[in-house]
Amino acid sequence: MPISLGELATRFGCDLDGDPDIVIDNVASLTQAGPRSLGFFSNSRLLEHLSRTGAAAVILRAEHATDSPCASLITTDPYACFARIATFLNPLPALQAGIHASAVVHSSATVAASAEVAANVVIEENAVIGEAVYIAPGSYIGRDCRIGEHSRLLANVTLARNVSIGARCILHPGVVVGADGFGNAPSADGWLKVPQLGGVRIGDDVEIGANSTVDCGAFDDTVLGDGVRIDNLCMVGHNSVIGDHTAMASMVGVAGSVKIGRHCLIAGQVGIAGHIEICDGVMINGQGMVTKNINKPGVYASSFPVEDVRTWNRRVARFRRMDSFHERIKALEENDS
Amino acid sequence: MPISLGELATRFGCDLDGDPDIVIDNVASLTQAGPRSLGFFSNSRLLEHLSRTGAAAVILRAEHATDSPCASLITTDPYACFARIATFLNPLPALQAGIHASAVVHSSATVAASAEVAANVVIEENAVIGEAVYIAPGSYIGRDCRIGEHSRLLANVTLARNVSIGARCILHPGVVVGADGFGNAPSADGWLKVPQLGGVRIGDDVEIGANSTVDCGAFDDTVLGDGVRIDNLCMVGHNSVIGDHTAMASMVGVAGSVKIGRHCLIAGQVGIAGHIEICDGVMINGQGMVTKNINKPGVYASSFPVEDVRTWNRRVARFRRMDSFHERIKALEENDS
Amino acid sequence: MPISLGELATRFGCDLDGDPDIVIDNVASLTQAGPRSLGFFSNSRLLEHLSRTGAAAVILRAEHATDSPCASLITTDPYACFARIATFLNPLPALQAGIHASAVVHSSATVAASAEVAANVVIEENAVIGEAVYIAPGSYIGRDCRIGEHSRLLANVTLARNVSIGARCILHPGVVVGADGFGNAPSADGWLKVPQLGGVRIGDDVEIGANSTVDCGAFDDTVLGDGVRIDNLCMVGHNSVIGDHTAMASMVGVAGSVKIGRHCLIAGQVGIAGHIEICDGVMINGQGMVTKNINKPGVYASSFPVEDVRTWNRRVARFRRMDSFHERIKALEENDS
Repeated sequence: MPISLGELATRFGCDLDGDPDIVIDNVASLTQAGPRSLGFFSNSRLLEHLSRTGAAAVILRAEHATDSPCASLITTDPYACFARIATFLNPLPALQAGIHASAVVHSSATVAASAEVAANVVIEENAVIGEAVYIAPGSYIGRDCRIGEHSRLLANVTLARNVSIGARCILHPGVVVGADGFGNAPSADGWLKVPQLGGVRIGDDVEIGANSTVDCGAFDDTVLGDGVRIDNLCMVGHNSVIGDHTAMASMVGVAGSVKIGRHCLIAGQVGIAGHIEICDGVMINGQGMVTKNINKPGVYASSFPVEDVRTWNRRVARFRRMDSFHERIKALEENDS
Repeated sequence: MPISLGELATRFGCDLDGDPDIVIDNVASLTQAGPRSLGFFSNSRLLEHLSRTGAAAVILRAEHATDSPCASLITTDPYACFARIATFLNPLPALQAGIHASAVVHSSATVAASAEVAANVVIEENAVIGEAVYIAPGSYIGRDCRIGEHSRLLANVTLARNVSIGARCILHPGVVVGADGFGNAPSADGWLKVPQLGGVRIGDDVEIGANSTVDCGAFDDTVLGDGVRIDNLCMVGHNSVIGDHTAMASMVGVAGSVKIGRHCLIAGQVGIAGHIEICDGVMINGQGMVTKNINKPGVYASSFPVEDVRTWNRRVARFRRMDSFHERIKALEENDS
Repeated sequence: MPISLGELATRFGCDLDGDPDIVIDNVASLTQAGPRSLGFFSNSRLLEHLSRTGAAAVILRAEHATDSPCASLITTDPYACFARIATFLNPLPALQAGIHASAVVHSSATVAASAEVAANVVIEENAVIGEAVYIAPGSYIGRDCRIGEHSRLLANVTLARNVSIGARCILHPGVVVGADGFGNAPSADGWLKVPQLGGVRIGDDVEIGANSTVDCGAFDDTVLGDGVRIDNLCMVGHNSVIGDHTAMASMVGVAGSVKIGRHCLIAGQVGIAGHIEICDGVMINGQGMVTKNINKPGVYASSFPVEDVRTWNRRVARFRRMDSFHERIKALEENDS
């Protein structure tokens, strides 16, 4: 979709430094950009990429305009502006409203006229599919689920039952929401299954990555707030509550009854134990393990970076001899006094 | 389903302290319970929840009956009793016996008359589906698979081939059982695939969480014993054997040819290396890594809880200087002697 | 498929020590092998298994021929030879070329005549399916995807869009390739989705394990080289590039824009942070965390093996007192001088 820099500047509230009639038709990285490309620059360490770019124009902050070899769209937050323009230039394919002949929709379900229900989708009792919702092939919408307007469930997604999803959400392929939580009571006969009777409530503008799972609550609902972002292969356990705009990278495990605040950032492979509370504004570094409440915003960590295996094994051996360090220091101190 | 406390006490072998004609029709947490709700109490730290509950009745141990503001169902194991009553009060929807018109069932497969094969299910050669089995939409049952009576495969489950499942099992959405194990032989031409010729044998009363995977054996079968409980996004590698009633929380990785005993508890994100043996009654704490056999029941751990990142980074730096601690203590000792 | 040792020796370039007319019809482990079985031996620690095997013949190195109680197929690399013979003896079921009546294939897609498109498969615009490709039930092939000859997509696989797969690849059930990468720009309105415009390019002879995910690139493609082997429940983030013949075990997380060299071995549950470069020939031990570039081939590690929980907790407590060790040693040194 070709558009002039002048129109982009107006539409997205940027200042333009350059010819308003220059036309761009795609976004690209600075290193790959061509004569019809728009790039963006925000990381000062990549100044070299900016100076060498072949882009027609670059979105950047005012302070970098003189470093640009081409036209500039000047804004205070280049990455956010870029996200908006890239979205504008790459609209989603239009929906083909209607229910595919191969889809199986229960008579008690409601599907908005503007929704697209693709091939081999199954929709169960009392499900409600909102306006302009897209449900991709192979997805399963269990009983009593509700999907808000403009949300998109991509291929082979499963909503087990009693899942409520807000507007403009994206669930990537293989996501499972609303499966039973892990509730097991020990007994003389082995584990007894504890029925999982709650549902899942997901706010607006939530995105869940491929093959992630969010379990239903035991009694009450599991909750994802507005704007939550979950990467691939994550797990949210039963009754957990994730605050608005919290983001978690791939393979994060959130056990049951966890409460995470708003605007938290959880890096990859972090584990959060059951019944933990984490306040707003907390960042957890990769592979961290959270076993106590966190009441103070900030950055937390508990993992070691790799070293060559000999060095590492020597450190582990020393670590296991710390008791002797302690004893030896004590002995020296006693002699010393 | 309304039922009187008197009938519940009789049916589930509890002593009743209260009016047998009180009728309840749901189970709930103590904090959410209403005048027709039955709760349970077993954790003494939540005594306050008990004293304030709005429940009609609470399942508890005799010692707590006097703390309850309402009727009591008295038993030695409240959580197990609760699991049984909650299951009784929340029966699964009745099966709609038969094969959905959109399902594709091979002529050599056998499906019991009381089983429900839902929309878009595919069942391959020689598969055998037992009485009262439920196979939810989008599931795939490969050749030579057998599913025991009353087992339930939820949406989009895959049994690759040669998978045998016992009675009363539950496989949650997205589970994959019987895919090839990770067998690769190095060669001058790169990796050669080693054919994975075994199957998977799963006992009775096993539950497997959403998007977990259990690979087939290389020669012999991969085995899950009776009553095994596996949470979401777990991996069981080829030829591994998991003993009866062992439970593993989310994101546990069990490599190939591992042997885990009975009644073990494996917490979230634990990793168990290949060819390891773990005896009965072992508990591994979250994110632990098992690289040697464990021959003694007990609790094992190897992970650090998060701390604020400055503190943590200082500790990592100190950890890397332990060599110098060692040298300096040695020097002091030599001077000291 | 019965075959004589003489024919096997000729076909696979082994020396035969034994009767060329002995017929075998299956491969088996040394401990399970019967009178028509062929086993293999390469691990000297299992010499006892060799001496007791009931196999008709064993593939082994010349130095072990005298230890074998039966016929020997002698080769320099028994495991690779075994992989080749096992593949030969266990051919895949023949394809049933054609498109199943329940599959939904877009009119602009191209499906080779020798390909098998199974039940309930959906193929979107402009997809190209090569010769002798197998697409198992429930799989979804998004627009602009290309699948090379003899590749096999097993049940419920999703290729989101713009995914190119080479020849002879295997994607196990539940794999998701080409879903959006995790691109989020912070803004005053919360996270803005950054469109993910790249695709995924996968080389020849690649295998991806069940429920693993490989995201599309943000601009450029995410790339898996030839012969890459990925186990179950792994994640490869957007724009990452995995070199030829690199293998990663289960639950490895590769963040975005990572570059991993050729012939690397990444063990289970390893995490690799974004924008990291790892050179050829690197091995990372289980649960390791990589946060800096690795420029030197070798073995790297950063995880601790489990110990009994009391011992472990004592070590963690000592670890947290290392500051005091430092101070106390310093004080002693000062007194000492």
